[in-house]
Amino acid sequence: MSAINKLSVGIRKFHTTASRLRKYVELTAVRYPLLKRGNFSFLSDRHLGFFQSILSAHQVLTDELNDLSGYNVDWMRSVRGSSRLVLRPKTTEEVAAILQYCNVQNIAICPQGGNTGLVGGSVPVFDEVVLSLELMDEVISVDELSGVTIVQAGCVLEKLETVLHLSNLALPLDLGAKGSCQIGGNVATNAGGIRLLRYGNLHGSVLGLTAVLANGQIMDCLNTNKKDNTGYDLKQLFIGSEGTLGVVTQVALQCQPKPSSVQVGFFGLNSFENVLETLRLSKRNLGEILSSCELIDQSSLECVTKQLELRSPINNFPFYMLLETAGSNAGHDAEKLNSLLEILINNGTIVDGTLAVDSAQAKNLWGLRERISEALACEGYVYKYDVSVPIRQFYQLVDDIRIRLGNLPIRCCGYGHLGDGNLHLNITSHEYNPILLNRIEPFVYDWVGQERGSVSAEHGLGLKKRDYMEYSKSPTAIHWMRRVKKLFDPNNILNPYKIFPEQSSTD
Amino acid sequence: MSAINKLSVGIRKFHTTASRLRKYVELTAVRYPLLKRGNFSFLSDRHLGFFQSILSAHQVLTDELNDLSGYNVDWMRSVRGSSRLVLRPKTTEEVAAILQYCNVQNIAICPQGGNTGLVGGSVPVFDEVVLSLELMDEVISVDELSGVTIVQAGCVLEKLETVLHLSNLALPLDLGAKGSCQIGGNVATNAGGIRLLRYGNLHGSVLGLTAVLANGQIMDCLNTNKKDNTGYDLKQLFIGSEGTLGVVTQVALQCQPKPSSVQVGFFGLNSFENVLETLRLSKRNLGEILSSCELIDQSSLECVTKQLELRSPINNFPFYMLLETAGSNAGHDAEKLNSLLEILINNGTIVDGTLAVDSAQAKNLWGLRERISEALACEGYVYKYDVSVPIRQFYQLVDDIRIRLGNLPIRCCGYGHLGDGNLHLNITSHEYNPILLNRIEPFVYDWVGQERGSVSAEHGLGLKKRDYMEYSKSPTAIHWMRRVKKLFDPNNILNPYKIFPEQSSTD
Repeated sequence: MSAINKLSVGIRKFHTTASRLRKYVELTAVRYPLLKRGNFSFLSDRHLGFFQSILSAHQVLTDELNDLSGYNVDWMRSVRGSSRLVLRPKTTEEVAAILQYCNVQNIAICPQGGNTGLVGGSVPVFDEVVLSLELMDEVISVDELSGVTIVQAGCVLEKLETVLHLSNLALPLDLGAKGSCQIGGNVATNAGGIRLLRYGNLHGSVLGLTAVLANGQIMDCLNTNKKDNTGYDLKQLFIGSEGTLGVVTQVALQCQPKPSSVQVGFFGLNSFENVLETLRLSKRNLGEILSSCELIDQSSLECVTKQLELRSPINNFPFYMLLETAGSNAGHDAEKLNSLLEILINNGTIVDGTLAVDSAQAKNLWGLRERISEALACEGYVYKYDVSVPIRQFYQLVDDIRIRLGNLPIRCCGYGHLGDGNLHLNITSHEYNPILLNRIEPFVYDWVGQERGSVSAEHGLGLKKRDYMEYSKSPTAIHWMRRVKKLFDPNNILNPYKIFPEQSSTD
Repeated sequence: MSAINKLSVGIRKFHTTASRLRKYVELTAVRYPLLKRGNFSFLSDRHLGFFQSILSAHQVLTDELNDLSGYNVDWMRSVRGSSRLVLRPKTTEEVAAILQYCNVQNIAICPQGGNTGLVGGSVPVFDEVVLSLELMDEVISVDELSGVTIVQAGCVLEKLETVLHLSNLALPLDLGAKGSCQIGGNVATNAGGIRLLRYGNLHGSVLGLTAVLANGQIMDCLNTNKKDNTGYDLKQLFIGSEGTLGVVTQVALQCQPKPSSVQVGFFGLNSFENVLETLRLSKRNLGEILSSCELIDQSSLECVTKQLELRSPINNFPFYMLLETAGSNAGHDAEKLNSLLEILINNGTIVDGTLAVDSAQAKNLWGLRERISEALACEGYVYKYDVSVPIRQFYQLVDDIRIRLGNLPIRCCGYGHLGDGNLHLNITSHEYNPILLNRIEPFVYDWVGQERGSVSAEHGLGLKKRDYMEYSKSPTAIHWMRRVKKLFDPNNILNPYKIFPEQSSTD
């Protein structure tokens, strides 16, 4: 089954529409003519023979027309590689045998999870061999008492969530792509999502992992202890390194008790000052039960309601906020939320809004937030920016860009994880327009860099953002990242062309 | 002011007593005769001249009798180095100048925070120059809205806590040594403590840091964004590396809203099965407000009440538990705790107990837990083990050791962070007894290793535990830790003799 087919229903619908509109995805090598293929081996029959000798037939895909296209194209249909081979190992040992061989033979590898990335990190750029984790999807163990869960890297997040719910446990992360994304890919990209505000990031909640290094060595860091200070915490290196330092094959996660009560509210506000005040009071009054605090601007809401024919309970506000609580006592949680709303409504901070009365309504409200990305793609080409900025400047970037771009784009909007300072700035045009792009970049990166923000808050760098690392990282840090990469993958076979900008000869 | 003098009142008293009993601390080089001094330069007048040229007089301490003794001895008075020089930089740039010079001159360095470590990691083994961070104690910024706090590494935890409380914020960590330990040392050792259950570990709550590398390069990873996926998260390497990869000079922390309601209960239980049941139901019923879940066994409570003349509200139980909740609504929190207790008392899980009615009582109850370590030291020599074990086997190790040791020790007891699976196993004898030690070790490490636990949950390896890393880490992981160390500190000048076992020539 192709990775794209596994996307959730809403997104699948969009894909059908989108692929009708844009049947052909330009090869990455054509769209980015400055990219040069590394000096890697070309796939030979001898190589193929080796892989076929260690794997079963269904683990080795070579049919370009029927099998490979889904692995070569990202789900945004914005980049396309030309890999001729997909390998689908079932065990850590098979991954190790593959990498050991590739390292000796100088064959480049593109590790791939659910292929739901947004920065071109999970598909080949040229002809790298795709190493798909999709057959490694076993939930190995779940311990209700400690919350420790061990799972193979290819397990789809939603499947894992379903299994955990049976033990009254909840995942420490949740994201729109959970119907297709895999936990190994989540770890490799340090996925954020909508519960980070509550449970923190994966550097905190991944207890251990197994990774296979470029040379085929199996790095067993599958710690299941909540506390372990016996030497360097090497697993941290693999979290967020986008498959460039090793291939994550197993993960031990610290899961949390499943909240018995979840409340969702959706509110209209007249100014960004009111948004900040709502955030401030929500943190104070909801405290430990606040699980999400999201912002949607007017333009984003317009787009999602129009393009996907969704209905919003309130309209015509410059800003909307979605607040979610998750707790262990419905009565207490409702009382906390109600008393917060009383304050906010009485002092005019919140003008109008609605509380979901059941999980179906809650899902509909979340749809207004989670499906914005899908709606934007219906307008044509989307220039996507996923940035962290100081909370008080959260919306200033959208205002500044809007003034700068004038009538050039169809839409310039902002939404995102307000509670985490993570803004999704999106600009749309009918088709890819280099003039518009040059008005946006590097302006947006300069802006974020000057505020000491992050030019990629949760999406990673992949291929598309790799040239902008320097806006968020110091030259010394980048220098040492390169040294770490060289140490772990001296031949650069693991996900080449990703994360690091092309190095000039003087670097 | 010597680091030891800064310990909190209770501990200071103990120190006075302890130093009367044991005036002389054997030199580490004598107690551990197999240790060999590395091939580092001996301190010369030329070196001293250089340091005096870049620092003020009060930043360079050389008076061995009056100034240096506190820096050479750990607070347990179990190891003693023979450093002739303490440097006390005030800025990151001064740290950089010192390290650059030491790297070129091949001078070994021992970075030191509050010197509250328990594994001999923060004092020199031989004559390493002590690099004390104590003059770098500025709180640089606190942002109430985002919770982001930037602080110099030498700031004492309690001072930082006081500053944060003014902004209604709480630290994500808390530990008994907070009156002396410094945030930089906490980060360098990945300190755990009593709130980890609630806020997770420092890998999750440190947003950024500045570290000076062995060669004097300043690694600016002082990210203040909650989310930042722009390349490898290098700061993670310095968290828990015990000063062997770089010297942390500044830290950006994600702080949390200060809970407005804190409740503490202390309970007696008749079996470890009841302890587990209490943990299970506490997690479910207290959910998001559970902030600590600690276990104390009968022997530990006997020791703390007897040695320190403390009073326990209940007595003669094989097990005691201390539960703490921290939340934003006192009424709700009390209701949750009361309904939990009703269940636990009605079904006979908890036999007796008390709830603190005010913060003074809460402090007294916490004293019964936090001062056990101090009480044990009054009995003579303490063999200390800080291990993570699977939660169902949490107390089995104490039982097994007790049977194994018979009448040899004065006491064999267990207590610790039950909610995190972190057991403090302590054994006392009148004086250091190698026969007893050989009965305990390597048995205890074997036991923990077989359960895939951690031989050092929160204390680190330092000097004293370095030979036991292999019980918790795979050979491949240890190999790569060494390679990372070599990459960042090729001359091994940063905190030598710590973390890694002595390498045999065949390694």
